Amino acid sequence: MEQTAFSVRTDLALESVENQEVTDDSGVGVEEEEYGDIKVTWVQVRDKRGAQSMGKPVGSYITIESEAMKEHDVETHEKIADILSKQLEKLAKLKPDAAVLVVGLGNWNVTPDALGPKVVSKILVTRHLSGEMPTELMGRVRSVSAISPGVMGLTGIETGEIIKGVVERVKPDLVIAIDALAARRTKRINATVQLSDTGINPGAGVGNNRMKLNAQSLGVPTVVVGIPTVVDAATLVNDTMDSMLNAMVEQAPRGTEFFSMLKSLAGEEKYHLISEILNPYTGNMFVTPKEVDAVIERLSGIIANGINIALHPGVTSDDMNRFMAI
Amino acid sequence: MEQTAFSVRTDLALESVENQEVTDDSGVGVEEEEYGDIKVTWVQVRDKRGAQSMGKPVGSYITIESEAMKEHDVETHEKIADILSKQLEKLAKLKPDAAVLVVGLGNWNVTPDALGPKVVSKILVTRHLSGEMPTELMGRVRSVSAISPGVMGLTGIETGEIIKGVVERVKPDLVIAIDALAARRTKRINATVQLSDTGINPGAGVGNNRMKLNAQSLGVPTVVVGIPTVVDAATLVNDTMDSMLNAMVEQAPRGTEFFSMLKSLAGEEKYHLISEILNPYTGNMFVTPKEVDAVIERLSGIIANGINIALHPGVTSDDMNRFMAI
Amino acid sequence: MEQTAFSVRTDLALESVENQEVTDDSGVGVEEEEYGDIKVTWVQVRDKRGAQSMGKPVGSYITIESEAMKEHDVETHEKIADILSKQLEKLAKLKPDAAVLVVGLGNWNVTPDALGPKVVSKILVTRHLSGEMPTELMGRVRSVSAISPGVMGLTGIETGEIIKGVVERVKPDLVIAIDALAARRTKRINATVQLSDTGINPGAGVGNNRMKLNAQSLGVPTVVVGIPTVVDAATLVNDTMDSMLNAMVEQAPRGTEFFSMLKSLAGEEKYHLISEILNPYTGNMFVTPKEVDAVIERLSGIIANGINIALHPGVTSDDMNRFMAI
Amino acid sequence: MEQTAFSVRTDLALESVENQEVTDDSGVGVEEEEYGDIKVTWVQVRDKRGAQSMGKPVGSYITIESEAMKEHDVETHEKIADILSKQLEKLAKLKPDAAVLVVGLGNWNVTPDALGPKVVSKILVTRHLSGEMPTELMGRVRSVSAISPGVMGLTGIETGEIIKGVVERVKPDLVIAIDALAARRTKRINATVQLSDTGINPGAGVGNNRMKLNAQSLGVPTVVVGIPTVVDAATLVNDTMDSMLNAMVEQAPRGTEFFSMLKSLAGEEKYHLISEILNPYTGNMFVTPKEVDAVIERLSGIIANGINIALHPGVTSDDMNRFMAI
Repeated sequence: MEQTAFSVRTDLALESVENQEVTDDSGVGVEEEEYGDIKVTWVQVRDKRGAQSMGKPVGSYITIESEAMKEHDVETHEKIADILSKQLEKLAKLKPDAAVLVVGLGNWNVTPDALGPKVVSKILVTRHLSGEMPTELMGRVRSVSAISPGVMGLTGIETGEIIKGVVERVKPDLVIAIDALAARRTKRINATVQLSDTGINPGAGVGNNRMKLNAQSLGVPTVVVGIPTVVDAATLVNDTMDSMLNAMVEQAPRGTEFFSMLKSLAGEEKYHLISEILNPYTGNMFVTPKEVDAVIERLSGIIANGINIALHPGVTSDDMNRFMAI
Repeated sequence: MEQTAFSVRTDLALESVENQEVTDDSGVGVEEEEYGDIKVTWVQVRDKRGAQSMGKPVGSYITIESEAMKEHDVETHEKIADILSKQLEKLAKLKPDAAVLVVGLGNWNVTPDALGPKVVSKILVTRHLSGEMPTELMGRVRSVSAISPGVMGLTGIETGEIIKGVVERVKPDLVIAIDALAARRTKRINATVQLSDTGINPGAGVGNNRMKLNAQSLGVPTVVVGIPTVVDAATLVNDTMDSMLNAMVEQAPRGTEFFSMLKSLAGEEKYHLISEILNPYTGNMFVTPKEVDAVIERLSGIIANGINIALHPGVTSDDMNRFMAI
Repeated sequence: MEQTAFSVRTDLALESVENQEVTDDSGVGVEEEEYGDIKVTWVQVRDKRGAQSMGKPVGSYITIESEAMKEHDVETHEKIADILSKQLEKLAKLKPDAAVLVVGLGNWNVTPDALGPKVVSKILVTRHLSGEMPTELMGRVRSVSAISPGVMGLTGIETGEIIKGVVERVKPDLVIAIDALAARRTKRINATVQLSDTGINPGAGVGNNRMKLNAQSLGVPTVVVGIPTVVDAATLVNDTMDSMLNAMVEQAPRGTEFFSMLKSLAGEEKYHLISEILNPYTGNMFVTPKEVDAVIERLSGIIANGINIALHPGVTSDDMNRFMAI
Repeated sequence: MEQTAFSVRTDLALESVENQEVTDDSGVGVEEEEYGDIKVTWVQVRDKRGAQSMGKPVGSYITIESEAMKEHDVETHEKIADILSKQLEKLAKLKPDAAVLVVGLGNWNVTPDALGPKVVSKILVTRHLSGEMPTELMGRVRSVSAISPGVMGLTGIETGEIIKGVVERVKPDLVIAIDALAARRTKRINATVQLSDTGINPGAGVGNNRMKLNAQSLGVPTVVVGIPTVVDAATLVNDTMDSMLNAMVEQAPRGTEFFSMLKSLAGEEKYHLISEILNPYTGNMFVTPKEVDAVIERLSGIIANGINIALHPGVTSDDMNRFMAI
């Protein structure tokens, strides 16, 4: 089954590491913490060896998992925002006077891809207030700017180009990019936040960006915060068949033709077969929960809260409400 | 395979009839016509026998199929609207002075379920203008009213109750209800319009209504116009596995254990197994195209045009634009 | 100046009473309370005499005024929702087991007229849950249903007809209707809530309804909750000119031609003259704050909170969030 | 009255020139053409003298006026789009292989300021298709990109900075910026399109930008296309009072105190007085038509059509529909 981890597209380091053996010299480190029902996992890809086995660049990947993200559970959402803010501070090594540019990736016209723009619309931007900051906020907020550049199909411009152009003029100390991700396991949809300091790779995310967006390409440290919001149709079929086949394999008498046939159905081959069958009808199809509009609204609130708390540690949520732009 | 047709939920009579033998005494009649790339099928369920084998009430079901509905093909969309208007006139036996109430079923907050409300927002309503009709329109329009009652989760009221209440006061001669449907085959999503004179049955549609909405319950003839906008996740998996298994069966040597195992995987049993596996994660999941917002916008335009042309035969589309309410 | 109060359209009893002399036998009673910056005024129109001088039906009119409604002041908004809930309970004489229908009047496509539908979308409806109520809520909520019928231009049906039809089938003990109102004074826009038990009169509100919607027409007690969201253009001009003229009158030497000319400019005549001048260009024009979309969003939240608290006294706002429909 | 032209804010050169005497040496030239009900005016500000008297930079200002823009008059809208495309080609001296960046200025959350972003969403962008252009379009379209940077309150960044950053990377041959304008005369709201080659000046538009956006600041020729969508409240009051006073002056016996008083009320002083009176309540108030959402939708379609026709002369409107991004 080792191969499958690579063949099926996932943006989550957590899913890449699932079928890996993590040993002292595997180049990958994994640590876990639990806060009530909220699970935090740090995956460290330490070197080339780790990067190769994981299919992910060297760096840190933090995952915050909670089933409560799928429900109207305001209290747990506040806890998640709090944990997110702490992990973000740690991962980004936020300095007190750092100027930050928040970038919302994705297409605002496609609900499950609209996470980034929705988060940006809830960020407390302050960069333009320097001279005219409300006195209550003076010295308690960082200089924050925010932009949702739109996807290439809407602008005709590589998203990376727009961001690079803005970074060159705004000259932030840190870029935080928000994106909707693709997961491999249906259960992780809308129940996981991933933070990483390795940027965004070509082809990642829901919207299939071609750009590479990272510290090297932008010239400033870049943290990506993402939530898997969809599973592609082929992955769903594959997952379900795996579960079915596993159940059957357990019951099949070893050594029979039946058993070996079942075993032969597993693996990458099957996934490609499924993709091929689905392709004419579902090339462009996604699996999402029915109430996706409401879910994206809620998740964008959790992420925006977490970022606002991290960037403006001296500002209460009441203040936030008061000074938010329209 | 006969059983599958019933076990997997479909709102399309066309799909119910697919695996049926249609003979002289089957109680079901099927006729087909083609207009270029547009295919029109009349399915008549003639008697109890037909109703039982089809799992659908006695009545007429017209399906208009065209792949062009999935694309920005304005010309073909106009043709489809035109065919829709003619089939609607025929099915509803529209009289020149008939007063019509158009009802948009579904939840406007859930994109693939918002088809009905979106169509209603594009209907040329005229009932209130009787006294003050623009002279250009006088004598060329029918009395048309329209309402989107919302789903029970939003109102706390059975949708059928609201409609019944309105029908009792407005006293139309005909109700046209618009709904998003569920299909069995992924390829039919957003590529099929169904018109029927049998009303809506409990549990039909995307939104799982409990109401029965038909001529008997409302007291006036009721035509339903629907488009399948989603496939449920279990159906998608089932369809894909069928295709895979069929391919394998063709290659498997008959008489082997392998062959009989493959055969045993087909049918209703498999579907239930899939549903069970998917349930914890995907009970509420739908498969939709990525650009579902734009698709629903476009489809609602096609249906509204078709209805407007049928109800107001003397009104050009320019007039429509001019007199549409905001 | 007495006449002006009638000639300029206002839905606020508070504004009708402003230029009245309130004496023991005037048939009008006024009481005021203040809670910090929030002012509550009860205007009682006691008899025919009062109704005639006020131009408003006999009944109670409660006004809650606070400049904080115009700003992002979450704390004060909570106080206002709380006061609103208490006044509503009192005015509606809410019984513990009363079934309530909340009706959102107005046009969801016209931002300043969308207050009613927006409030309805934030009401915790429970009527459909009787059998399957979450155990946490059992016995702590009233049976609440809600509907936004849309305006006549969208439905072709008198709004009153739709509501009457629904009331007849749902049979609530109380109707609470929400509407956007017109005020006479610009400063009251988005800074005032009015509750009344006299229903809605023809021609009231932003949307110019023709219907009469009250206890008599609906057959159940009817409370209207409204916020003035616009001032019509002629009123704005009139108000401004009054202020200018008043300033000039004070400086003008009494007895001169100038003085009498200025005096002659006051009053109803001027308003009609202004309306006439404005008519060709601004017949359909409203004065609203630039950020009207955000304002209506916020105000609808305050009103919905107040109503939710009154109707479901055992439910915390966290519960509300959890059980709200999508 | 000469002064008034400057004191009341207008973005329309047409309104600045209204009270001017246009002579051979005034530095200003005016030419008019009429196409049915559509009036086209070219105002040329030729030199410093003209710029000073007009309060507008040297350059060309084209105004297209038609009352039909306020109504659902599809046929005339097509004519206007056509005229707009021809004037744009002429003003911008469009070369066949010019790469164009379309910029939507304004705040998408504030309806009357959302014109720019709405137009951008309807522009056929092609820059990213160079390699994979549908063969039908090859050689018939220009390289077009488009961006809506958002206003400073939303991004924390000067809009001009973002655009400058994008221009530096995309390197277009021409920038076309779309903006909502402020007019002086209520009747011109939503009934006028202005094209100019002088860029946008600080403080212009509905959104009060601080930036200067023109050929000099961006380094490429810049054309601005705008529609006045609001009149500020003080302007409305001022206009109405002028009309009233003019009527009264005509009837007043010359030489009397009354007459001179009326005369004294005219002019800039009055406007300032009005602004002062209105300020506490209406500082942030705009006058818009009730149906502003629908109007902005329609107007953005007319402008986008005009630009699309000018930039992609070989593309039919059916093609447009087909290849538009979602």
